[in-house]
Amino acid sequence: MNVALLGFGTVGQAVARLILGSSAPLTLTHICNRQVARKRVEWVPSSVAWTERFEDLLGPDVDLIVEVIGGLDPAGRYHRAAIAAKKSVVTANKQLIAHEGGEILRLAAQQGVHFGFEAAVAGGIPVIRAIREGLAGDSLKRISGILNGTCNYMLTRMEAERISFDDVLADAQAKGFAEADPTDDLDGYDARAKLCVLARIGLHVALRPDDVPCRSIRPLKDVDFIYARRLGYTIRQVSHVECHADGNGRAVDAAVEPALVKSGSVLSRVRGSENLVLTVGERGGETGFFGRGAGGDPTAVAVLSDVLTIARHSSPPGWFEVADDRPATVESRRAFPHYLRLVVRDKPGIIAALANALARHELNIDAVLQEGGWPKESLPFVVTLEPARRDLVDRAIDEIAPLDFHVERPVCLPIVD
Amino acid sequence: MNVALLGFGTVGQAVARLILGSSAPLTLTHICNRQVARKRVEWVPSSVAWTERFEDLLGPDVDLIVEVIGGLDPAGRYHRAAIAAKKSVVTANKQLIAHEGGEILRLAAQQGVHFGFEAAVAGGIPVIRAIREGLAGDSLKRISGILNGTCNYMLTRMEAERISFDDVLADAQAKGFAEADPTDDLDGYDARAKLCVLARIGLHVALRPDDVPCRSIRPLKDVDFIYARRLGYTIRQVSHVECHADGNGRAVDAAVEPALVKSGSVLSRVRGSENLVLTVGERGGETGFFGRGAGGDPTAVAVLSDVLTIARHSSPPGWFEVADDRPATVESRRAFPHYLRLVVRDKPGIIAALANALARHELNIDAVLQEGGWPKESLPFVVTLEPARRDLVDRAIDEIAPLDFHVERPVCLPIVD
Repeated sequence: MNVALLGFGTVGQAVARLILGSSAPLTLTHICNRQVARKRVEWVPSSVAWTERFEDLLGPDVDLIVEVIGGLDPAGRYHRAAIAAKKSVVTANKQLIAHEGGEILRLAAQQGVHFGFEAAVAGGIPVIRAIREGLAGDSLKRISGILNGTCNYMLTRMEAERISFDDVLADAQAKGFAEADPTDDLDGYDARAKLCVLARIGLHVALRPDDVPCRSIRPLKDVDFIYARRLGYTIRQVSHVECHADGNGRAVDAAVEPALVKSGSVLSRVRGSENLVLTVGERGGETGFFGRGAGGDPTAVAVLSDVLTIARHSSPPGWFEVADDRPATVESRRAFPHYLRLVVRDKPGIIAALANALARHELNIDAVLQEGGWPKESLPFVVTLEPARRDLVDRAIDEIAPLDFHVERPVCLPIVD
Repeated sequence: MNVALLGFGTVGQAVARLILGSSAPLTLTHICNRQVARKRVEWVPSSVAWTERFEDLLGPDVDLIVEVIGGLDPAGRYHRAAIAAKKSVVTANKQLIAHEGGEILRLAAQQGVHFGFEAAVAGGIPVIRAIREGLAGDSLKRISGILNGTCNYMLTRMEAERISFDDVLADAQAKGFAEADPTDDLDGYDARAKLCVLARIGLHVALRPDDVPCRSIRPLKDVDFIYARRLGYTIRQVSHVECHADGNGRAVDAAVEPALVKSGSVLSRVRGSENLVLTVGERGGETGFFGRGAGGDPTAVAVLSDVLTIARHSSPPGWFEVADDRPATVESRRAFPHYLRLVVRDKPGIIAALANALARHELNIDAVLQEGGWPKESLPFVVTLEPARRDLVDRAIDEIAPLDFHVERPVCLPIVD
């Protein structure tokens, strides 16, 4: 099978090495990248054509295009052109599948070409295939997990060392674990795209990514890890999506957010840049998948595995259960206990003011924690709330936040598992 | 697609329910079982033919046979006859794949029929597909895990409660978690069959099951959990297979045995009847899969998932990397620290006698532990040994075991991770 490679960055180079080193009947025919003169490397044999023109990949000598440039445009145009030219496609592009997966998968099925996207979610963990095929016999109700390795690297460092958010971010950037602009990772948009892909294949639900609430990990401080530990928890960026029991698959709970997870739980045990995906099925119960969620090599393994699956099959699978293309409604119905951390200029009456505001919103305080040794002009303390829906908690926080004793806006995290 | 069901026990009944309830284009045509009159149930529609004759499943109205009777014979004959009649086969039969998988997979490929065995290993966890396809782009070096839910149920109960082996076994049998004859589970033969299947698909190594050492969990006592905890460990039945670095895939380390695993490690966190499979790949690093390893429903989910995959594909995969059919050599080369538990009639000189015997075999003692409160005529204590190959440790134990102070034969467990 003749394979053309679109994109020659870290992942693209790792894919090229794997294809060239594979004993399977695969031939690398093209490498397409901008400024190809600067990209050429001597370990690629001279039989491979270098090009800057995507159209060169559409000729009869190419069977499959591997797209590892990422982003919505021009990647989406390239996908459509490749499928129209009856090329199979393998991609690591989570944003494209999250935003346009319904249309692109339908086009691929119409044209009878293979379309693989194992690498789009959780890097080297073969979770797409596991959910789409291995759990096809079950009916999944919930998918959750840790889908962003950068956040997890940062949070596990904050957990292990007493180190500020800014310092750990600077260090992660210096080491290449975080990008110069870390917005997509820290604010949840990267994990959200992966969650939307998982919801599509596992719950057969189309989510508009913008509908899924994302809460950033940026407001976290080292004091949050201190209080979390006091409570028997730690903090992870958790993604979850779950069908409402009465929603007929048309309404879900979904969010990407930092959350308190029990120390020793499976979520808490995901360290460094690892990823974890948990599924809950009606008949098979909880099933979990973990491993290296990012990086050139694990992602390239996922790409090559898709390429090999396609090479083994003369035709693509005839059908998959597909998501209803009408976007599902996202609505937070599930009640969680919450952790509410405030930093205040201490004075009498603060707890009373908080308690009154919370009571007005029918939220019950479970506990108030205050560690010693903090200055009175910037005193962090924590209130935990009994289970309640997030929108109700947010409404209370909106009322509390303008009170004059705050040094910064309160931070609210759900307490899961 | 027309599906015939061979075997109508717990798993077979769950499979029948799933097929009958599926919205996929599947028709259940036959149910074949001994003493079919006693098996008939009213929830199976009258369109399904009940039979005691396997040959009835070989007619033109059957596309796929699901075999859930287990065992080597007659299952092996039925598989061969089904494949010869160009029927696709889906099975949960780990023993058959472990012992005769090479031949049967080759026959299926020759006849151009699908052959699915996701349900043969780790019940509802889609690990066969994940390894065979999802990690196909990597080169796996090691597979390990917890593959027997009965042992894990018993060991986690002994860990949590101070309860004797015999009591927990009787309770497990009463609750249906262990069979009346628990030999296959307790002595490791069930896990070994699964390990051989994983070695075949993941490491491309053919193992003769009888070549893989199995050590029983029967000699374990509650005191082992007390000493393990003192050392920061707990005990699990661990299966592992690993290619020797210089073996060219022709020689492996492999065993199924109770082992000390670090408290809090991923192995220690597998509870009850759950299973876990860990793979280590050259490029993707460690990847893990966990979930419900047994039971009618999870196994039936795996069967139905295979059936659906086959229904989606007009033809089976053209090729898989196959294991060399010559059995690999199994040889314990990896050095582990070991836990050696003795029960003695206390008298002076015991430690000296042990230390001398161990020294003669060039084994170094790491620590000696003795909890108080045990009777002197039956005193359990523990010696931990620095890393050494198991065969050398066994040789030393053979010399130590006949010494006159033992109340029972010493128990030796490797300390892993």
